[in-house]
This record gives sequence, C-alpha cells and structure tokens, in this order.
Amino acid sequence: MKKVVTIGGGTGNFTVLRGLKKYDLELSAIVSMADDGGSTGILRDELGVLPPGDVRQCLVALSDSSKLMRGLINYRFESGGLEGHSFGNLLLSALEKVTGSFETAVEEAGKILSIKGKVIPITINPVRLKMLLDNGKLLNGEKEIYVSTEIDQGFRSIFLDPIPKVNPRALDEIKNADLIILGPGGLYSSLIPILLVEGVSKALRETKAVKVLVINLMNRKGQTTAFKGSDHLREFKKYLGKDIFDHILFNNGKPPQELVQFYEQEGNLVENDLQNDSRVIQADLLSSELKEVQNGDLLKRNLIRHDHKKLAQVLLSIINEI
Amino acid sequence: MKKVVTIGGGTGNFTVLRGLKKYDLELSAIVSMADDGGSTGILRDELGVLPPGDVRQCLVALSDSSKLMRGLINYRFESGGLEGHSFGNLLLSALEKVTGSFETAVEEAGKILSIKGKVIPITINPVRLKMLLDNGKLLNGEKEIYVSTEIDQGFRSIFLDPIPKVNPRALDEIKNADLIILGPGGLYSSLIPILLVEGVSKALRETKAVKVLVINLMNRKGQTTAFKGSDHLREFKKYLGKDIFDHILFNNGKPPQELVQFYEQEGNLVENDLQNDSRVIQADLLSSELKEVQNGDLLKRNLIRHDHKKLAQVLLSIINEI
Repeated sequence: MKKVVTIGGGTGNFTVLRGLKKYDLELSAIVSMADDGGSTGILRDELGVLPPGDVRQCLVALSDSSKLMRGLINYRFESGGLEGHSFGNLLLSALEKVTGSFETAVEEAGKILSIKGKVIPITINPVRLKMLLDNGKLLNGEKEIYVSTEIDQGFRSIFLDPIPKVNPRALDEIKNADLIILGPGGLYSSLIPILLVEGVSKALRETKAVKVLVINLMNRKGQTTAFKGSDHLREFKKYLGKDIFDHILFNNGKPPQELVQFYEQEGNLVENDLQNDSRVIQADLLSSELKEVQNGDLLKRNLIRHDHKKLAQVLLSIINEI
Repeated sequence: MKKVVTIGGGTGNFTVLRGLKKYDLELSAIVSMADDGGSTGILRDELGVLPPGDVRQCLVALSDSSKLMRGLINYRFESGGLEGHSFGNLLLSALEKVTGSFETAVEEAGKILSIKGKVIPITINPVRLKMLLDNGKLLNGEKEIYVSTEIDQGFRSIFLDPIPKVNPRALDEIKNADLIILGPGGLYSSLIPILLVEGVSKALRETKAVKVLVINLMNRKGQTTAFKGSDHLREFKKYLGKDIFDHILFNNGKPPQELVQFYEQEGNLVENDLQNDSRVIQADLLSSELKEVQNGDLLKRNLIRHDHKKLAQVLLSIINEI
C-alpha cells in the first residue's frame, strides 16, 4: 500500500484527505500547530492547550464514523459562554487535559472517530507564528497574519516563537513516504509555518518520495496579491532551500464570472505562468458545489475551492505511476 | 435476565448502577429532569437544552468503555469561559443540538460510552422544580431547593412548572420491571420530582415488580432535619398515594465519629425507627473509601456515602429471591 503524506493547514488538508480517503492508501496528515484564531485561539489562551482546530479538520476528513459523529465533531455552539467553540475542539482539549499529552489526545480522538490514517502535529511545543513587516510592524500570531493586508508590501521575516522542536514522527513520515502533497492552503498562515519547523525542509529535500505542489486557486489580497505560479514556487523555494517538486498541480477550470467579481475584495485567481514547465499538470479542479454554510468565513472560502474528488483523481494518477 | 429499574437523581443512581452493572441484569435508570444547578443550569439557560448532568452520571455508571473515556466524560474544564462545564454535559448538549432530540442524544452518547443498560429521562419537556414555602417564599428551581435551609419549617407545595408529559418509555419500564429501586438521593431535589410527573406514581402502585426503598444515609439540615425512617416513608407515601415498598434498606454501619462531627453543619444520620417493620433490611452499607476529589461539594458528599458493592450485594440477594 502506497504511503501518502499531506502537508497543509486544516482546510487544505481536509480537501485532499477527504478525496484520497476512499482509496487504498496509507494516509498521514502533517498539520501546522500555529493556528491561534477563533475557537482554537480562545482554548489556547484560556486552557493553555495546543491548537486543536486544524487537527480536528483532518480527523473529520479521515473519519470512517457515522455522519452524525462527524456532524457532532464539527458542531459549533451558538450562544452563551460556549459560543463559537466547535465540539471537536473541546474534545481534543479535554482529552489533552485528561491524558496530559496532545499527541495521545489526537490518537484517542482518532479512535473515537475511527479514522483511516494518521494525523501528526508538526510539533507539540506551543508556538506563535510571527511576521516582521518591512514597515516595522510585528504581526503577532497566525490570526493577525491571516487578516493582514500589508504583507504584499514586503516583510523582513516570518518565524515561530519560541523555536519549536520538530515532532520526529513527522520526519519519519516524510522520509518513508511514496508521495508527499504540499498544499493547498494559506501560504503564510498554513504552509510556510510547517516549513519553518527545523528539520522539515531538510527532510523534504532528502526524501525519495515523489513531491507534488498543489497551487492555490486564489491569491489573498494584500498578501499574495497578483502572485502567479512562479511567485508561489519562488516562495516555497526560499523556505525549502531548493525547488523540490516533481509535479505542480494547476487548476484550469473557470469559475463563473460573478464569483470572480464577488471575490475581488478578497483576491484574484492564481495565473499559470509555468506553461513551459514540464512538471505542470493542468486540470479542472474546481468544485461546483455551492454549499451555503453558517459561518461567514467558511461561506466565502467555500465558494471557489478545490473539488475533493477531482483533486483525488489527478493525485491518484500520479500515485499509480510511482 | 431480571429487569431492574432504578429511580433517582444522578449521584444516587450512579452508586446503585455502578454496583449492579457487573451482574447479569437488564438495567434501566430513570432519571429526573429537574436539575438546573452548576454546569447543567448554565447549559439549560444559555443553550436551551435539557439538563444533561444526571443522565451523564448514569451513562458513566453503566459504561463499559475505557477508564480514559469515563474520565473524559467526567472531566471538568477549570478555567476560562468553559470553567465548571463537564465534558459529558457538553457532549449531551451538542448531541441534542445536532440530532434535535434529547432522547436520541442520550442514546447516541450511550453508544459512544458502550453502556450496558438504558438511561431514560422521566420527561423530555423542559421543566423547573418549584416549591412554595409556608412562609410564602417561592423556591424557583432545583438549585434553590437544594440549598434551602427553610424547607423543614414547612412547605405548601412542590411542583413542576410547566406540567410535563411523562416519557412513555419510563412507564413501560416500571410496568415490566422485576425489581424497582427508589433512592438513595435528595428527597425533595431528586426523588420526589420524579414522582411528581403524572403517571409515575400510578405506574409504581400498579406494577407487579418488587419495590425497594433505599433510605438515605444522611438527612439534609434545614430540609429533612432529624427525619427518621418513618418520616422518609411518610413523605414517599404522600406522593405515591400509598406505601408501595416490599423492602426498606437501612444502613447500620457506623461512620467514624469525626466524620459525623464534620457533617454536623450539613445534617445528621437518618435514624432507624422502623425496627418492628418486617420489610426492613439492615446492613452495613457504608463506603470506607475516603477519596478526595477536586470539587468541594463532591468531597463532602463522598465522605459518608453508600458503598456500591455492599449495596449491590444486598440488592442482589433480593433479586435472587424473585
């Protein structure tokens, strides 16, 4: 059975894992631990736990349990002191408190959810993602970086504080993988924070695994404004030390014009300027599901997004050639 | 397999069920829905859910799952906006929200916890327990009744508001039971509130089941101050319509004098003035476990309490004669 490792933030990982779950693969999701927004941020601050949000999304994506169970894990309380907390986040935080270990908590939650595969936090140290902008401003935390619109004006550094120790299980997974999938996900808020953990880039350079970069559909205005494929690749090269990718996945499906207009405030579609790069695989990867969801943020994120089935099909064709 | 029905508040039911669980019996726990204190009260007020606390205790008592799982369900968050909430209460409340039904929530939580037996809420209507004192004061809610020290001065009525519809499954269980165990538990806060639900007393009068009353170890000062066995029996007769009991269980173990002194503020030991009543079974039912627990309330409640194994042995000797 082929070993597939995904690297990304919660939502990006979710789409890839959900698509690949039904195939006969050994899946491992490596997850950023830099999240500090929303329910996750409150739990970090108030309980001193590690961030559960991204892990929760991966667990749900890999879960073989009932629809009810997955609904329960994603359920968000709507009022009172619990408002905004997702039940799955509370489960992971309570398990961390009861077991005294975030990793054991993830493992036990995986059993409760009957997951197929593994979810591996990139570190089990509490870290904050920080970014020092060219204008001297310090963005303190992933949440501040996520909402910033000044990043495209230049930044001096992006770093984790304090410097975390890498989870050795994550390095083992990278070393032993047949295929590694990086992305999709927020460039500065999800993907680069994983590469910042010491040892990860080296392991990615050295592994014999086939490495696939899934280019995001959309840029984020004020962050990756007007980035093309080559700009994304350049940023990854900076943190990886070299261009490691064997395949670069690009969407060539066209979203409806009204959606693109609706998104203008948020950012534009990533343009493919890598047509001459033989590693590029182009395919229609767009979801046509226009599901309305409660949370305002999610609604917007969900409108132009990868289709988990289409993405899985392309990834599977790569896996089958290994 | 003998059908055994327990009737009580969470803690009383917990002790009886925990003791009986390891025997080959069909257990059903009928649970009061009047609780509105602590974590349960906050969830009722803020989320509009039915009270999870007593149900949670029964689920844990009947659970065949791992120690970790039971620890998780009983885990109470210690800080921030979640402070004081037990994880099991949040599980039941989230399940009620996701499924739209408290009964389904209890059933699904039972599956997650691999329970042996059934937990049946006496009603699925939202109710408040109220008590009108002789001095004209209205105690509004189980929590106010639980802490009142004026009840022994006399009360005009105790009632549920609004009048709830009985859960027909509870009546079926009472009808088909081989043995029914009432108590131990708070007289006015846990046991009588169940008898107040229309149809319950009638069902208890008419069932062919053997009926056992487990007399509380301690009186509650200001509520059942200086009550003897006959006083407890008289109160039950008032709400049951007649004296229905086949057996009356009395502890005759003596707690250490320092514990009795420690409890003087809380209440005194229930004295057995029913020695000539042939239905009385006397036995040492006292727990010698002096477990310290975090929560101040629980600590006190746990010091002089029934031993689940001793209680189960006496109950089993009754069951074996049916």
